[in-house]
Amino acid sequence: MSFSSKPIRKELHHELKGHEALIDSLCECGRLFHTRGWSVGTSSNYSVVLGQHPVDLIVTGSGFDKGQLQPNQFVRVNEFGKPTTPEQPKSSAETMLHVVLAQRSEPVGSILHTHSVWGTLLSQHFYEQRGFSITDFEMLKGLEGIKTHESEVWIPIFDNTQDIPVLAEQVKAIYQTSPEKIRYGFLIRQHGLYTWGHDVFAARRHIEIFEFLFECLGRKLGY
Amino acid sequence: MSFSSKPIRKELHHELKGHEALIDSLCECGRLFHTRGWSVGTSSNYSVVLGQHPVDLIVTGSGFDKGQLQPNQFVRVNEFGKPTTPEQPKSSAETMLHVVLAQRSEPVGSILHTHSVWGTLLSQHFYEQRGFSITDFEMLKGLEGIKTHESEVWIPIFDNTQDIPVLAEQVKAIYQTSPEKIRYGFLIRQHGLYTWGHDVFAARRHIEIFEFLFECLGRKLGY
Amino acid sequence: MSFSSKPIRKELHHELKGHEALIDSLCECGRLFHTRGWSVGTSSNYSVVLGQHPVDLIVTGSGFDKGQLQPNQFVRVNEFGKPTTPEQPKSSAETMLHVVLAQRSEPVGSILHTHSVWGTLLSQHFYEQRGFSITDFEMLKGLEGIKTHESEVWIPIFDNTQDIPVLAEQVKAIYQTSPEKIRYGFLIRQHGLYTWGHDVFAARRHIEIFEFLFECLGRKLGY
Amino acid sequence: MSFSSKPIRKELHHELKGHEALIDSLCECGRLFHTRGWSVGTSSNYSVVLGQHPVDLIVTGSGFDKGQLQPNQFVRVNEFGKPTTPEQPKSSAETMLHVVLAQRSEPVGSILHTHSVWGTLLSQHFYEQRGFSITDFEMLKGLEGIKTHESEVWIPIFDNTQDIPVLAEQVKAIYQTSPEKIRYGFLIRQHGLYTWGHDVFAARRHIEIFEFLFECLGRKLGY
Repeated sequence: MSFSSKPIRKELHHELKGHEALIDSLCECGRLFHTRGWSVGTSSNYSVVLGQHPVDLIVTGSGFDKGQLQPNQFVRVNEFGKPTTPEQPKSSAETMLHVVLAQRSEPVGSILHTHSVWGTLLSQHFYEQRGFSITDFEMLKGLEGIKTHESEVWIPIFDNTQDIPVLAEQVKAIYQTSPEKIRYGFLIRQHGLYTWGHDVFAARRHIEIFEFLFECLGRKLGY
Repeated sequence: MSFSSKPIRKELHHELKGHEALIDSLCECGRLFHTRGWSVGTSSNYSVVLGQHPVDLIVTGSGFDKGQLQPNQFVRVNEFGKPTTPEQPKSSAETMLHVVLAQRSEPVGSILHTHSVWGTLLSQHFYEQRGFSITDFEMLKGLEGIKTHESEVWIPIFDNTQDIPVLAEQVKAIYQTSPEKIRYGFLIRQHGLYTWGHDVFAARRHIEIFEFLFECLGRKLGY
Repeated sequence: MSFSSKPIRKELHHELKGHEALIDSLCECGRLFHTRGWSVGTSSNYSVVLGQHPVDLIVTGSGFDKGQLQPNQFVRVNEFGKPTTPEQPKSSAETMLHVVLAQRSEPVGSILHTHSVWGTLLSQHFYEQRGFSITDFEMLKGLEGIKTHESEVWIPIFDNTQDIPVLAEQVKAIYQTSPEKIRYGFLIRQHGLYTWGHDVFAARRHIEIFEFLFECLGRKLGY
Repeated sequence: MSFSSKPIRKELHHELKGHEALIDSLCECGRLFHTRGWSVGTSSNYSVVLGQHPVDLIVTGSGFDKGQLQPNQFVRVNEFGKPTTPEQPKSSAETMLHVVLAQRSEPVGSILHTHSVWGTLLSQHFYEQRGFSITDFEMLKGLEGIKTHESEVWIPIFDNTQDIPVLAEQVKAIYQTSPEKIRYGFLIRQHGLYTWGHDVFAARRHIEIFEFLFECLGRKLGY
C-alpha cells in the first residue's frame, strides 16, 4: 500500500509511456535511499534525462514518499522546467536544478538529490569556506573517470534558499566558469546533495560514494 | 508469525470494520518504525482519528510488538479514552494523550508516538529549558504548512510521568494558551516523541522529519 | 540458501518434534538480531525452556549463522547441559548458562544472548564496578513487572572466561544470594548480554529494550 | 531489476557452469554487505577458490553493483590473474590480491574484500604503526581456530596504491616471512579489508567479525 493520501492514477500518463524501465530504476533508487535514511520525510528528488539540448526530462513529483514511489508520481518537464502537458503531478520545487544540471556539456542521463544526516552536518560545518575537498580515499575511484585515490574532488556548498531559479543560475555559473569546482556534485547548506551521472546506475553509484565519504569525514570531525 | 504470546482473534472486531485501510497504514508505520529502531520493545503507540468533536479514534492496544502489528491489536475509544465496547484489547496506557491531541482545533487525522535513541537523548539534554527550537534546516519544510527553512519550530519537553491524564491536561493547556509552542509535536523526557497530521501519511512524514532532525542535533551535540 | 557448510538434515530430529512453533520463533529472533548487528559472526545463542525443574530445554547448536537458522540447528539438552540423545548438533559452548538461568525460581520460558557493539563497549566501560544501574528511562517499563520509569535496574558484569561451568556457578550464586542484582539480565565483559522472559516474546522484548538502553548510555558516554 | 547499464547475458558462461551454488553464495554476500554499507558504490570484490596450486578461482567482475550481483558478473581466472577464456567480463582490478591469497599454504576456499566506514577510519588511524592488534574480545573466537578471547590478532595495514601486482607481492612477502602477522586479514589504507576462509561461510563470518570489531575499536577512539 502507499501512504499517499492522494489518489493514484492507475493508467500511466502518455508523456511517461515508453520510459517505464527508467522510471522503475528511479523508484528503486527511492526505496534504497529511503531505507538508508537519505530520502525521508518526502525529501529528495530524482530525474532521468531524455534530452539535454534542449532539456527533456522526467522528474519526481512534489511531496511523494520516496520509499514508495509510483510510476504515476513522475512528471515530464521541458527546458523551462514546465510540465510538457497539464494533468501531470506538480513537479518538484527543485525542478530547475535538474534542468540546469541536464544542460551540462558532458552526457548527463540522471540527476539524483539526497538529503542525509551526514550531508546536512558537513554542509553546515564547511559552509564558511563554501565547500571542501575529498582526496586519498579509494572510494573516489567509483566516481566516473577517476583512476586513482590520489585525485582530489571539490564539493562546493551553496547557501540554502527557496528561490530555486536563482540557485540554479549560481550552479550554472560555476560549472560554466570553473567546471573543475563542480565536476561530480554539490551540497546545499542544511539541505543535501546533488550528483549526476551518464545514466541512473552511475548517478546512484555517485550517491552511494558521496554518502559513504560524508560519513567518513563526519565521523573524523567527531559528529 | 507473531511473537505475541496472546491469542489473536482472526475475526476483526466490529468496531474496527470499515476502517481496514487506515488500520493497515498504522501497521505499516509500525513495521517501518520498528525497523528504524524507533518503536522497539513494544514501545510507541499510534492512532487514527475518526472524529474530533467528540473524539472517536482507533489506537494501538497495549503491549504489542509494533513491528508485527495485527489489525485485531487495535482498540476503538471515545472522548473519555474508554473502549467503545468491551471485548477489545486493553488500549495503550497513553490513550488520553491521543484523545487530547485529537481535540486540537485544526484537522488531526492521525497521532503517532515513537521512542527513539536520539529523541530520548535530546529530551534529557534540553529538559532544563523545557524544550528546544529547530530552525534553518530544509527538512523543516516537510512539516505541514512550512514554506521556508528559515521557519522556527519549538519542541516542548514535558517531564515523564505515569499519570497520563495529568500529562494530557498539561499538553492541552499549552496548545490552548500558547499553540505556537506546540504546533507540530513534543517530547516527553527520557520517553519519546508525539507528532500528528491531518492523515496518517502526514503524521508519518512528521515522524521521519523529527527523527532526522533529532539525529542531526544529537550528533552536533556529540552524542 | 544457507551459508552453512555443514549438511542440514531435512527431517526434524524427533527430540524437537512438536516444538516447531517455539523453534521458529527463535529462528525469527535470529533473523531480527542478525539484521540489527547483535548476532553476527555466528555469535549469540538462544533457547526455549520446556521444563525448569528438572531443566529441559532446546538451544541453538554451535557455529551456525544466526541470521539463517534452520530448525535442525537446535539441540535438546537436559539439566546437565547434555544432549538428550546423540546425533544432535553440538550444542552452544554456553549451554550451561542457559541451564542455570532456566533453574531460576520464577517462570523462565526463553533465554536469549546477544553480542552487540554497544553491549560490548558498556561491558568494558563499567567492568571495574562490576556493573551499572539503569533508571529514569520510560523504556524500562517494557521489562516484565516494571510499572514506572523511576525503577532502577542493575546490570551485573561478569568477567569473560572460557570456563562456562564456572561462570554459570557465579551467575547462579548471585541470583540465589542477591536476586535483585540480577533480575533481568547481565553482561559478560567484552562478550555480550543475557536476558530471559516467561516466553520468547518477553525475552525478545527484553533484548530490544536493553540494546536500546545500551545505545542511549553508550552515546551519553561519547562512544 | 538491476541498475547495471550493461547488458546481462542470460546464459551462464561455460567456465562458471557447475559452480552455481558457490557463485550464488557470493551474490548473497554481496546483498548482505551492500545492505550493511560495506560494499557500496560498486566497491569490494569477492572470490571462490576452485584450486590453490595452481590457482583457479572465480572472482567478481569489475564495476558491478554488489547489492545486485548476477551470476554472469563473475570471471574465472588462472594463477596469473588472467581470464581462463575471453568473452568473460573484465575481472576486478584487484584480482591479483585474490590470486596471491589463494596461494597461501593453508586451505583457502573464499576471499572477501569489503570497504566499510569503520575499516576506512581505522586504516588511516593506525597507518603510522602499519597495523594494530585486537585482543580480549569474545568475538575473536569466531575466527577459524581461535579458542579464547585472550588470543591476539594483528591486522597489518598496507599503503593504498593502484599498482595491485606490487601490493600483491608485499602481501605475499609478509605471509611467507611472518605468517603470524597476516593470519586472518589485512587493511589497505583508506581502502578496506581483505579476509578469507576455508569456504564462503567461514570467509563471510570473518568479515562480520572484523567489521564488528572495527566498529567497537572505532567508537572507543571517538569516531
